[in-house]
Amino acid sequence: MYNCTINFILPSPHSKCKMHAYSGQARPTFYRRCCNGSWNSWALRLLTLWVLITGCTAADTDITLDAKATLNHRIQSLDLLVFVFLLALTVLTIWLFKHHRVSWLHETGLAVIYGLIVGAIIRYAGTNTTLVHMQVEPQGVPTYNDKLPPDTLWFKYPVNQTNSTKLPEGVKTYAYVFRGQVYDIEENEIDLKATFDPEVFFNIILPPIIFYAGYSLKKKYFFRNLGAILTFAIVGTTLSAFLIGGLMYGCVKLMPKYLSSSFTFLDTLYFGALISPTDPLTILAIFNDLHVDVNLYALVLGESVLNDAVAIVLSGAIQNYGEHYSNTGEFETTAFLRSLSDFFSIFFLSLMIGAMMGCFTALLTKFTRVRDFPLLESALFVLMSYSTFLLAEATELTGVVAVLFCGICQAHYTYNNLSEDSRQRTKQIFELLNFLAENFIFSYIGVSMFTFPKHHFDAGFIITAFICAALGRAVNVYPLSWLLNIKRKPKISSNFQHMLFFAGLRGAMSFALAIRNTVSDARQTMLTATSLIVIFTVIIQGGAANFFLTWLKIPVGVDEETEQLNNYQVHSVYNSMDNSHSAPSDGYLQDVEGGTGGVGRGKARLSSGADSNLDTPIDGNAATAACGRRRNSHEKAILARIWGNFDTKYMKPLLTHSRPTLLETLPVCCNPIARLLTTTQQLTQDGSEFRRVDSDSDICIDNDTGNGLSQDGLAGGRRNSINRMEILEHVQSPVSTRIRLLGFYGKKL
Amino acid sequence: MYNCTINFILPSPHSKCKMHAYSGQARPTFYRRCCNGSWNSWALRLLTLWVLITGCTAADTDITLDAKATLNHRIQSLDLLVFVFLLALTVLTIWLFKHHRVSWLHETGLAVIYGLIVGAIIRYAGTNTTLVHMQVEPQGVPTYNDKLPPDTLWFKYPVNQTNSTKLPEGVKTYAYVFRGQVYDIEENEIDLKATFDPEVFFNIILPPIIFYAGYSLKKKYFFRNLGAILTFAIVGTTLSAFLIGGLMYGCVKLMPKYLSSSFTFLDTLYFGALISPTDPLTILAIFNDLHVDVNLYALVLGESVLNDAVAIVLSGAIQNYGEHYSNTGEFETTAFLRSLSDFFSIFFLSLMIGAMMGCFTALLTKFTRVRDFPLLESALFVLMSYSTFLLAEATELTGVVAVLFCGICQAHYTYNNLSEDSRQRTKQIFELLNFLAENFIFSYIGVSMFTFPKHHFDAGFIITAFICAALGRAVNVYPLSWLLNIKRKPKISSNFQHMLFFAGLRGAMSFALAIRNTVSDARQTMLTATSLIVIFTVIIQGGAANFFLTWLKIPVGVDEETEQLNNYQVHSVYNSMDNSHSAPSDGYLQDVEGGTGGVGRGKARLSSGADSNLDTPIDGNAATAACGRRRNSHEKAILARIWGNFDTKYMKPLLTHSRPTLLETLPVCCNPIARLLTTTQQLTQDGSEFRRVDSDSDICIDNDTGNGLSQDGLAGGRRNSINRMEILEHVQSPVSTRIRLLGFYGKKL
Repeated sequence: MYNCTINFILPSPHSKCKMHAYSGQARPTFYRRCCNGSWNSWALRLLTLWVLITGCTAADTDITLDAKATLNHRIQSLDLLVFVFLLALTVLTIWLFKHHRVSWLHETGLAVIYGLIVGAIIRYAGTNTTLVHMQVEPQGVPTYNDKLPPDTLWFKYPVNQTNSTKLPEGVKTYAYVFRGQVYDIEENEIDLKATFDPEVFFNIILPPIIFYAGYSLKKKYFFRNLGAILTFAIVGTTLSAFLIGGLMYGCVKLMPKYLSSSFTFLDTLYFGALISPTDPLTILAIFNDLHVDVNLYALVLGESVLNDAVAIVLSGAIQNYGEHYSNTGEFETTAFLRSLSDFFSIFFLSLMIGAMMGCFTALLTKFTRVRDFPLLESALFVLMSYSTFLLAEATELTGVVAVLFCGICQAHYTYNNLSEDSRQRTKQIFELLNFLAENFIFSYIGVSMFTFPKHHFDAGFIITAFICAALGRAVNVYPLSWLLNIKRKPKISSNFQHMLFFAGLRGAMSFALAIRNTVSDARQTMLTATSLIVIFTVIIQGGAANFFLTWLKIPVGVDEETEQLNNYQVHSVYNSMDNSHSAPSDGYLQDVEGGTGGVGRGKARLSSGADSNLDTPIDGNAATAACGRRRNSHEKAILARIWGNFDTKYMKPLLTHSRPTLLETLPVCCNPIARLLTTTQQLTQDGSEFRRVDSDSDICIDNDTGNGLSQDGLAGGRRNSINRMEILEHVQSPVSTRIRLLGFYGKKL
Repeated sequence: MYNCTINFILPSPHSKCKMHAYSGQARPTFYRRCCNGSWNSWALRLLTLWVLITGCTAADTDITLDAKATLNHRIQSLDLLVFVFLLALTVLTIWLFKHHRVSWLHETGLAVIYGLIVGAIIRYAGTNTTLVHMQVEPQGVPTYNDKLPPDTLWFKYPVNQTNSTKLPEGVKTYAYVFRGQVYDIEENEIDLKATFDPEVFFNIILPPIIFYAGYSLKKKYFFRNLGAILTFAIVGTTLSAFLIGGLMYGCVKLMPKYLSSSFTFLDTLYFGALISPTDPLTILAIFNDLHVDVNLYALVLGESVLNDAVAIVLSGAIQNYGEHYSNTGEFETTAFLRSLSDFFSIFFLSLMIGAMMGCFTALLTKFTRVRDFPLLESALFVLMSYSTFLLAEATELTGVVAVLFCGICQAHYTYNNLSEDSRQRTKQIFELLNFLAENFIFSYIGVSMFTFPKHHFDAGFIITAFICAALGRAVNVYPLSWLLNIKRKPKISSNFQHMLFFAGLRGAMSFALAIRNTVSDARQTMLTATSLIVIFTVIIQGGAANFFLTWLKIPVGVDEETEQLNNYQVHSVYNSMDNSHSAPSDGYLQDVEGGTGGVGRGKARLSSGADSNLDTPIDGNAATAACGRRRNSHEKAILARIWGNFDTKYMKPLLTHSRPTLLETLPVCCNPIARLLTTTQQLTQDGSEFRRVDSDSDICIDNDTGNGLSQDGLAGGRRNSINRMEILEHVQSPVSTRIRLLGFYGKKL
């Protein structure tokens, strides 16, 4: 009844980062036994000693309790410290790798490997202790008249040890807080070490990663490939989820009885949903380094960003189907339709909340002059972005999805209203947060392979999962590419399709979804398979990407337009605005001139996916010319063109300081309102009228902002961070670049 | 026995940010009833409806449980959202105030006022609900053989409602986790709304504030006034704590019985310790704006930074005295000595850990070339700084103190090794974190006045506390100033002393210490008094600071040396390094040239205390000259001179790229080691030999780093962020500035 090994809880390696994660705690996952590492075995002895030495009065219980609390706090600190040191080690090793130009292992792969090593050490070096638990029953005659278990239990601890007199003050009442359901009462001996509440991922780790992904989408090419990206992300992910779900269900049913009986179709479908989203961090880093075709880059990035959002909503809908709508777990039309409507309504409402909050921030920054105080402005930006997440969560929508679209809107509108200082600051902050969060989650994937107690290895399932995941990716890519190619102007070549297929690494989102619910055997088997798929794809597939690119003869260094625009920009900056470029670009330029460090150096800036995408503001005149020449581009999707038109006519004039103003685009009857929504700054700047015709490029927006800023006397300070690789190339072969530059303009005109 | 009002827990507005805060949870504070705001009354009804509609099978319990968990999560999100919006509102209002040049209310005062308003709304608009709790007893025959209560309770919830059949699967076991002791079993009806676990302050909010304080200490003047600062901070704070403790004890004993009986001398002493640290944010912001005498500035800043550290360790020692060493609470020599040794050992060990981690980071950044990748470098910097906190907490020291000294070392050594990008990034990140944390804590002080359930108003105590706090501050300032003036070269004038007295606002640290422990009536009375003192001093004293400065005829605009150095720098930058200054300084310069925004604009950068202190790197030649001329300065304290000597000879050569190298300063026998610890960069740069003689100025370090950097081809990118006010002045009266500049060199030579 009352297990009394001396031992310590660590309820808080879970609660460690429990930023509003209680919902998680109450989910069925929660029977968690607690955990300590090797480091607390001595502390254990110490406390035992303490207990033995001190007497047995009530006051001693207090002191022991206090010592235990202190000990817990220390163990948690140590626990976190392990991860912080792990990250620091990863950072240093990444530097070493970059320094020695090791390209076969990306930082996320490194984080996973370090995590695996540390996890193994913690597992095999630690002492196993379980926590004390006691079965209790209500005092007096129990008359339950509530459906729910009570929120807290008050437990009178009667200090009636043999050697203590039963004083009235010896009776203490302790409060116990509801944690969750206990599923496997027998399962006593496993302990959790250095594990976190899975909800931490959804509430703390994923939001900055996803926000940064949105905030740094390479927008021009993103919008140009909008149709393909949406098809891949929404149709493809759903297709892949259902295919994997179906295939896995079939395979599982052929497996031994114990496994097949624990899986329902919903389980395998959930698995399909969680294994479908891709996370091609490694691939994108390599793409960035090698200047792979921008359209391919945009496809891979855009798809991976959006399919995360699709997958989280899809898996939520599947879970809802199982929990609320269908009692049998079998197909029911109404339940299916309700789940379907859930899926769409949650996705689009989350999208709307995110977009609205983004636009609201844009309005705030447009109509106040908070930009005069960059610190206040950055604080406002961060607060508004975070409140988007909270708002979505508070309205039972998906915070991660909201934050993604908020990020996109912030980059598309708000970014243009920000002061130079805030642009840099917000980018750098979210870049750093993203870097830390990414590496944390990947090292945790490694650590948890050994420390998370709910792994369930089944070779058959794992192999099937690997095959199905690959098949799912294939279904996501090839048929849809074929469909898209029917209408698409620059066709997606078969080599590109292979690369898209190959870029289907699995990452943070799959892992977070898998570890969220580990209540049944089926779920635990899925978690193990998912972890292994993530580790395998990140290390092996990520490492082989370079080789694969060469093998598929994907053209590298073809990032023509941006590159040439940038070169153009370099010239104009050099020629006309000698002191207008800021520290970072300076650093690069001089880096090039210094000639040290070589290729390796540039990677830090390029490594985190789409780093350079926001770095293409262009000095006013150059961009004006460039945009003028580019307006005849035929490459845009129809969807993008319609949206671009609306965006240029109404959204940008409303939300940013860009021209044309609403006075020009709205009907005459709306003039009073339009005047109200147009700032003086917008009216007084020299217009770039041509943009009314056609614009989908953020380079053009930046151009406008540049004009706005220069009138404000601030333009000199704007940041022209130039992709170092391009400059290198430019420096090395100015002639060929100029020829290509000429070719580019020739083509465009 | 079993209270069954329908209601909801919010165990997690507390656990919301429970980054390793478990120790807190187990402390005696923790009987927390849970809380919801007005917003969940409709949700309450919704859930009740749900419960009524759905049937009564076990599956329904699951669903209800799930719905409840979801609801909890939503309420927590809303709870956090309130604070995020509050902060956003504060940011916007601060901008408005700065825009309209309102100077009688500082941002922290504003945050407090908004907090008070929102707190009142939450309190009076919310519905009061309590949470369900149930008294339980062990199942079967209890045989306790452990001193501690069990870590978890397993509660079989037998779903034996009237309308459900008793199925075996109807019995569910729920886990309950230990929270803490219940002190007042009767106290049922109060609920916590929008309150946080007090440990959140110590583990999340205070560390970035304190780190930033250390990272941005105006080092030159700090070291020059080291003796006075240490005297005020260590001796003064202790003196003040004991005086307040003694006075309060005497006064309390004269008060009505119910109050006097609840206070022990330790309680009042604890009150003395927590009310002694000052937090002159508002004052420093005004000092910064008006360019008050730098020595006065350094005294106020240095003292406030250090006395926070002293107070937290002192209050810890007092608490230990009461809990561990003394049973009676009366004076016992051994117990007193043990507490005293606790105080010193914890303080100095924390200091050592902080300093060591700072130096370790400096070594890492010196001997690796991680600076080639600013993102990695910034990540390393942040991780190492955070691990200092965790390390100190894990070794039962004081994380906040460790983080303070880590910040000082990071600024003194590591900062010089960082790349330009990282310098800016780390400064901006910690500046933003500091801003958000500060405003969060001040708005929480306001909110908690209404929502925190454990306030205990007692007019007599509050008035006495106000008087004693003022007296304590007086004892801190006047006698010590008199003592210091005996030996001190530039005497602390009586007006400066009055200003020091007046700058004794109370802030975040006092509040955090007061709310940490609210277990007894005495502690609750102390919390109320502390909150009121903080609110009063921040709003009234902070608002009157401007007036007081004028009234005391404190010279403003006398920030001579820095100012003139900066002007000198502006010249050299203008004349010789046209494209060497980066965006922020650019922004300022053009801001001045543009002439818009006026004085108000500069405030954003200046507002957060010592913002500009790290902003005085000086272009190589200028600084070389300046340092050479300044080396004869007689103003330094003896302590500072000894330290400065050691620092220049051994520490800086070891930890940074500065000259002289260890090869020159160490005895010949140590040459091999010295060679190992000296980088090529250090050897190849042009030496500034004279610095071996005498250096206490960080301007000189920056100079060296500048040299190192320029050889690396990066110097062009370094940041010469210039205090805008000074430039303004310079632009407005170039002649007078030059005269003063001449005067300055004349004086120094």
